Amino acid sequence: MIFKLSEKVGLAPGTPVYTGNRKVREPKIRVISYDDKELSIADDVTTEDLMETVESVKKQITWLHVEPISDQEKIAQIGTQFELHSLVIEDILSVSHRPKVEEFDDYIFVLMKAATYKRSTLRFSQVSLVLQEKYLFSFADGTDDRFEILVKRLQKSGSRIRRSDSEYLLFALLDFIIDGYFKILEDIGDEIEDLENEILNNPTKESIEHVHNLKRTLMELKKNVWPMREVINTLMRSEEIDPKYQIFYRDVYDHVINIMDIIEGYRDTAASFLDIYLSTLSNRMNEIMKTLSIISTIFIPLGFMTGYFGMNFTAMSDAVLKTNDNYMYANLTMIAIPIALLIYFKIRKWF
Amino acid sequence: MIFKLSEKVGLAPGTPVYTGNRKVREPKIRVISYDDKELSIADDVTTEDLMETVESVKKQITWLHVEPISDQEKIAQIGTQFELHSLVIEDILSVSHRPKVEEFDDYIFVLMKAATYKRSTLRFSQVSLVLQEKYLFSFADGTDDRFEILVKRLQKSGSRIRRSDSEYLLFALLDFIIDGYFKILEDIGDEIEDLENEILNNPTKESIEHVHNLKRTLMELKKNVWPMREVINTLMRSEEIDPKYQIFYRDVYDHVINIMDIIEGYRDTAASFLDIYLSTLSNRMNEIMKTLSIISTIFIPLGFMTGYFGMNFTAMSDAVLKTNDNYMYANLTMIAIPIALLIYFKIRKWF
Amino acid sequence: MIFKLSEKVGLAPGTPVYTGNRKVREPKIRVISYDDKELSIADDVTTEDLMETVESVKKQITWLHVEPISDQEKIAQIGTQFELHSLVIEDILSVSHRPKVEEFDDYIFVLMKAATYKRSTLRFSQVSLVLQEKYLFSFADGTDDRFEILVKRLQKSGSRIRRSDSEYLLFALLDFIIDGYFKILEDIGDEIEDLENEILNNPTKESIEHVHNLKRTLMELKKNVWPMREVINTLMRSEEIDPKYQIFYRDVYDHVINIMDIIEGYRDTAASFLDIYLSTLSNRMNEIMKTLSIISTIFIPLGFMTGYFGMNFTAMSDAVLKTNDNYMYANLTMIAIPIALLIYFKIRKWF
Amino acid sequence: MIFKLSEKVGLAPGTPVYTGNRKVREPKIRVISYDDKELSIADDVTTEDLMETVESVKKQITWLHVEPISDQEKIAQIGTQFELHSLVIEDILSVSHRPKVEEFDDYIFVLMKAATYKRSTLRFSQVSLVLQEKYLFSFADGTDDRFEILVKRLQKSGSRIRRSDSEYLLFALLDFIIDGYFKILEDIGDEIEDLENEILNNPTKESIEHVHNLKRTLMELKKNVWPMREVINTLMRSEEIDPKYQIFYRDVYDHVINIMDIIEGYRDTAASFLDIYLSTLSNRMNEIMKTLSIISTIFIPLGFMTGYFGMNFTAMSDAVLKTNDNYMYANLTMIAIPIALLIYFKIRKWF
Amino acid sequence: MIFKLSEKVGLAPGTPVYTGNRKVREPKIRVISYDDKELSIADDVTTEDLMETVESVKKQITWLHVEPISDQEKIAQIGTQFELHSLVIEDILSVSHRPKVEEFDDYIFVLMKAATYKRSTLRFSQVSLVLQEKYLFSFADGTDDRFEILVKRLQKSGSRIRRSDSEYLLFALLDFIIDGYFKILEDIGDEIEDLENEILNNPTKESIEHVHNLKRTLMELKKNVWPMREVINTLMRSEEIDPKYQIFYRDVYDHVINIMDIIEGYRDTAASFLDIYLSTLSNRMNEIMKTLSIISTIFIPLGFMTGYFGMNFTAMSDAVLKTNDNYMYANLTMIAIPIALLIYFKIRKWF
Repeated sequence: MIFKLSEKVGLAPGTPVYTGNRKVREPKIRVISYDDKELSIADDVTTEDLMETVESVKKQITWLHVEPISDQEKIAQIGTQFELHSLVIEDILSVSHRPKVEEFDDYIFVLMKAATYKRSTLRFSQVSLVLQEKYLFSFADGTDDRFEILVKRLQKSGSRIRRSDSEYLLFALLDFIIDGYFKILEDIGDEIEDLENEILNNPTKESIEHVHNLKRTLMELKKNVWPMREVINTLMRSEEIDPKYQIFYRDVYDHVINIMDIIEGYRDTAASFLDIYLSTLSNRMNEIMKTLSIISTIFIPLGFMTGYFGMNFTAMSDAVLKTNDNYMYANLTMIAIPIALLIYFKIRKWF
Repeated sequence: MIFKLSEKVGLAPGTPVYTGNRKVREPKIRVISYDDKELSIADDVTTEDLMETVESVKKQITWLHVEPISDQEKIAQIGTQFELHSLVIEDILSVSHRPKVEEFDDYIFVLMKAATYKRSTLRFSQVSLVLQEKYLFSFADGTDDRFEILVKRLQKSGSRIRRSDSEYLLFALLDFIIDGYFKILEDIGDEIEDLENEILNNPTKESIEHVHNLKRTLMELKKNVWPMREVINTLMRSEEIDPKYQIFYRDVYDHVINIMDIIEGYRDTAASFLDIYLSTLSNRMNEIMKTLSIISTIFIPLGFMTGYFGMNFTAMSDAVLKTNDNYMYANLTMIAIPIALLIYFKIRKWF
Repeated sequence: MIFKLSEKVGLAPGTPVYTGNRKVREPKIRVISYDDKELSIADDVTTEDLMETVESVKKQITWLHVEPISDQEKIAQIGTQFELHSLVIEDILSVSHRPKVEEFDDYIFVLMKAATYKRSTLRFSQVSLVLQEKYLFSFADGTDDRFEILVKRLQKSGSRIRRSDSEYLLFALLDFIIDGYFKILEDIGDEIEDLENEILNNPTKESIEHVHNLKRTLMELKKNVWPMREVINTLMRSEEIDPKYQIFYRDVYDHVINIMDIIEGYRDTAASFLDIYLSTLSNRMNEIMKTLSIISTIFIPLGFMTGYFGMNFTAMSDAVLKTNDNYMYANLTMIAIPIALLIYFKIRKWF
Repeated sequence: MIFKLSEKVGLAPGTPVYTGNRKVREPKIRVISYDDKELSIADDVTTEDLMETVESVKKQITWLHVEPISDQEKIAQIGTQFELHSLVIEDILSVSHRPKVEEFDDYIFVLMKAATYKRSTLRFSQVSLVLQEKYLFSFADGTDDRFEILVKRLQKSGSRIRRSDSEYLLFALLDFIIDGYFKILEDIGDEIEDLENEILNNPTKESIEHVHNLKRTLMELKKNVWPMREVINTLMRSEEIDPKYQIFYRDVYDHVINIMDIIEGYRDTAASFLDIYLSTLSNRMNEIMKTLSIISTIFIPLGFMTGYFGMNFTAMSDAVLKTNDNYMYANLTMIAIPIALLIYFKIRKWF
Repeated sequence: MIFKLSEKVGLAPGTPVYTGNRKVREPKIRVISYDDKELSIADDVTTEDLMETVESVKKQITWLHVEPISDQEKIAQIGTQFELHSLVIEDILSVSHRPKVEEFDDYIFVLMKAATYKRSTLRFSQVSLVLQEKYLFSFADGTDDRFEILVKRLQKSGSRIRRSDSEYLLFALLDFIIDGYFKILEDIGDEIEDLENEILNNPTKESIEHVHNLKRTLMELKKNVWPMREVINTLMRSEEIDPKYQIFYRDVYDHVINIMDIIEGYRDTAASFLDIYLSTLSNRMNEIMKTLSIISTIFIPLGFMTGYFGMNFTAMSDAVLKTNDNYMYANLTMIAIPIALLIYFKIRKWF
């Protein structure tokens, strides 16, 4: 629930301000240039060397991965070099943005959220993608592994990704980010099953907190996945995307819809957990009260009887207590009452 | 809640991976070729012989039913032979996909879910249909009876299905799959009536679990039926479907809407079960507490009285206990108090 | 909740199967032919004589009312005679269908639901209408009175219905069916008022069941009225309906909207009944517990006192019990404690 | 919840039937004719004189206010004189109609609901407006003051209303009717604040009934205001309304939206009242049970002790009761137990 | 919940009436004229001098900030001078209006809500903006600091705002107003976290009131932010706004969407607080009842035993009480019973 957008109130729009909470470190840029024949990877290119490195590979498709983005000056500098709109730079740095896509004259700007889920904590990393004719920029706020799996796929010469345009690379990145949500949903699915067991069989005071956390996680997921659907849909219909790639975007669109379906299903389940929890509590309460009531109903009248025969009236002593039979009758009554009551309770199905 | 989509993260799109949980077995293919005059059935055709078998019946309408689909290599091989897009193959094998329809240049790809409901467990089998000019492919992940009823209808020469095109065969398959849901809804309807009786008359701790399971089943149903509506709607309006068959697609569309209506009705009912359950619990609690309160309110004051006359004060012994009348008055009071209280409770309608 | 659609699984579409639960009886057909000058009624025309009867009145508007429709062979026969599509026949016989309208080349097929409400039980009868240039067919599954009121209006020569086309007759039938819902809503409205009184003043264990039944009735109503709106709307905009009759269809459309409004209002009220019920139960529980608590809080300490002075310690006997004043003080304390507690409870507004 | 629409079942559409519950009285018609120079008011014109009166002022704008409308014959007669469609007459008399607008060839028919709110009771009066080139008819079912304020504004010569067309007069009437809802919302707002205080501080058994009534009132309001939005919107975009007046209709449209916003806000608040009520009840219950539990937990063990020392075992008498120290120890224990328990309760924050 | 719109019932539309609750004070007008080279600020210009001041700077962009607006005559006078429509003047003064935009022939009228949040109280100030070719009017009902930050940005020569048209100034104002909501959302977010802690760990009677207030605050926010989205959207697509500025409006539109997302998230969280609260109460109740039940179940049977042996039967005295062993057995039983019960409770997991 942490965002620092308020710090930006009053600043001119387009002012580059990093709103994340990572330490300021200089971005390390990985430049991958490839065509169907060759591929070269330059790691840790500095902002200063960037332009030069890019110029040298001009005819190939070039993927520039920038991470981290906590150093707002350097990022702004890259933006200026590649003539990105100041509002785009602002959006790249403003890491609590919702996913979106914007088409400019000579590039498409796509803002996505990658996610990780560890120890019941959901974390989003903003990934901003800028697609130009020959370049693809990816600015990431903490994806850690810098899309290593994709890089490996790129290294396999002859693969479809090597034979295709930068639009396919964009698709591959989007597909990779979105498929990452399936892993998360599986983990959450496991948690939901555990929680369901807990709530049905042994609900504790903490269960309600778990349900609450689960609901919040799902809400966060939904909030970020929902606009991605819109993003992919826009790209799918965009004139900028070659029709031959549209079927791939349709595929990733299907995946987003699938994720949304699963999230909605989970939300329904989580919502019904509370109902189960409350009825389990009610059930227990009934159980407890029944026990108490049975004990009380049996022993309170008996207690009255013993009290009665413990009274010190002289007249009573003479009339009642001295007769041996009365003691026996009293004892019998005290045995009969609980038996009668237990039968009564049995009939009324109290236990 | 089991799906293995996460295994596919990072794989190139179009990689054929079977995501179901059935044992890998070689697909057995049934090839049915027919026109209004002749019909020939070839069972258990192997992938290797498939192309040859199909070539030999070129002028007739050919239905190729492939089952099981757990052997991803073989399925991919069939796909390649018949020039299906690699994403289509992927979708056929990815058995937790949501229903959808996609139109390609020379074929229509329809992905459906058949369902069975046994011992309160809902199971979906993915059925993928590929409609070409003369062929209809059906890939099924476990429908067991391989549409035997439809085959029988096909065998009746002169039936409409024999006189019509492959588009009518597609319709017949869709109609058969969707009508299967009516059987399921009837079974669920019976369960709902039982559950309603249980909850209204004798709710137990397990009832809430039954309601929860019912709700989940309905949610699963809805999740899978909802997109089918879209599928049928798209087909109904598709230019690929001959107008003379559109009224049939409209008919099956009506059935889907009908199924959705029934599901929504069931969901409403299931939702109100919880309310009934909770109020029944509350009612019982009131009942128990009333009994306890009546017993307590009657006997606790009486208990005090007996205690009072059991005190050992010497002064009391002289002044109170020795008088015979007092004993009688005490007895009378002890009879009067419960009677008075019972009348009071009666007036306040406690029982 | 009873439907037999599952029996039809696997049958060829268009197979005429009666899915209702009325006994199979031969349909009796009433043929009413009229123009602004003449009117002739032929009752109980058999299927065999039907064609002939109709031929003889060719230039007039002819209303053919068929009831009951439980004899599927005869109905199919009528359908064939008048060249209705096999799917239309199927729909006429499939009496749990949702309302719909379908336009064919030379007729319009309208499927409606008439309703009756007796002893808190809602019953729907499917009425299927087929409008041709000069004919109007009405197939009814149990409307009992065979639209007698409409027949009477027809008999009045010079009335608008006599002067108008078959499209106006269709409207009159729709109007009559839909107006029937107002009667039902009035009855339900009365029941709601009774139920409201019951729940606010004297809720019983059965109340929740009444609310549940009410909710289900309203759900059923909604489910059937909702698509009627669509039906009327389609007719209203249909090119087949002469513009001069559109204002009448708009009028009946208004009525449907009105009915839907009332149903929604009722549903809201019914939904809030449960809340009232639960809070009344909670209130009662509080009432009961307060009584119990007051009694317990007063008498339990008193009980302890009497117990204390009933102990048999020798030392106590000497030091405490023999003094006359102590007895008085004990008595006074036993009077003071309840008074003090009652004042305390009064201040805390417990009663 | 009272409507008599069922009485009309089976009647030919267009039959004029008054469905309100006011006594049948002859309508008194006020005819106001004006242009920017002159204004004449004729009160209590009878149906018979109406045509003549209107003819005499032909070149001016004429406002005819008809009230009451309980005499269905007279109203039908007026309708016939001015050539209104029979369905319009029916709608004017059918006073539980929802607001709507209908455009005819030479007039616009607008049906609105004016409302009053007194002693927590909401009452609607149907106001039907018929706008012709030069006339404006207003039929009111009980607005009592016959728009006196508007009449006064009309009497001020030179005012915009005097300088404008009948379309502005229609707007002025609509504006007046809709602004009347603000007064009602203010009154309801005051009630909501009172109710909020009551529920937060001192909820009684009646509170839930008040909430229920409030919710119903708001539902009634919503049901009638919602379609008015549609009415004004239609008029705003109507070609019949001179563009120069559209900004005024846009203004009144804003007011309707504003009213709907407030109603929705109130509904939200009313919905949350129930939650507050139930939790206050739960809180009180906890309070009561805590008191009872503390008393019981303290005194029940003490009671056991006194009972123990009140036993009549001879052995006990010798071994335990005769020793003076034991009495002291018993007394000390009886003091220690409650203190220990109170400390324990304090630690567990029971009070 | 205070508004005075009812005072205006019956007034002619366009009558200028201030509906706020601030004291009537003469407006002080700040006139800022600028182009990329020069900037002049005239503070506290009176209504009388306004026209003259404005005339003198005709070729520059002029921003006229009017505040307060409680003096309805003066505001009406300004409106007349600058030829604003009387309904616009009315809207400016009617400070409980919902945000909206209206396009007139030669100006655009934008009505916005600025907000402040102090001590859990949300306050809105209406800001009305009128954009003409060269002028921008801003009428504010209590923003206190008169957009000082924006003024400072204006004073920086060479800044984008100085180089741009009045449309950019309008955007800057809108952006500033909307960014102000982020600050508010951060404050509310902090409160939500506190409240969450309170409810999960130590819910009190007041918690439910806090939740209620939070929900109302969020509802108020939503009610005012929702239409702003529409306002910005309209402006974004307006032909009056130069395309080169549209990206800036798209940016502010993103912000509004972001704010709405956060509000919806908060509303979800607030809604679930009630559930947590109620289950915590239920949990506590269970806790209390368990303690009471354990105490009662242990001591009530023991109490019966002591009572039994305290009876004064002569026969008993002889048969039972005189034997020393019996005393020992009784003691042992009294120790055994609680131990047995505690083990039983432990097994049933009561504590």
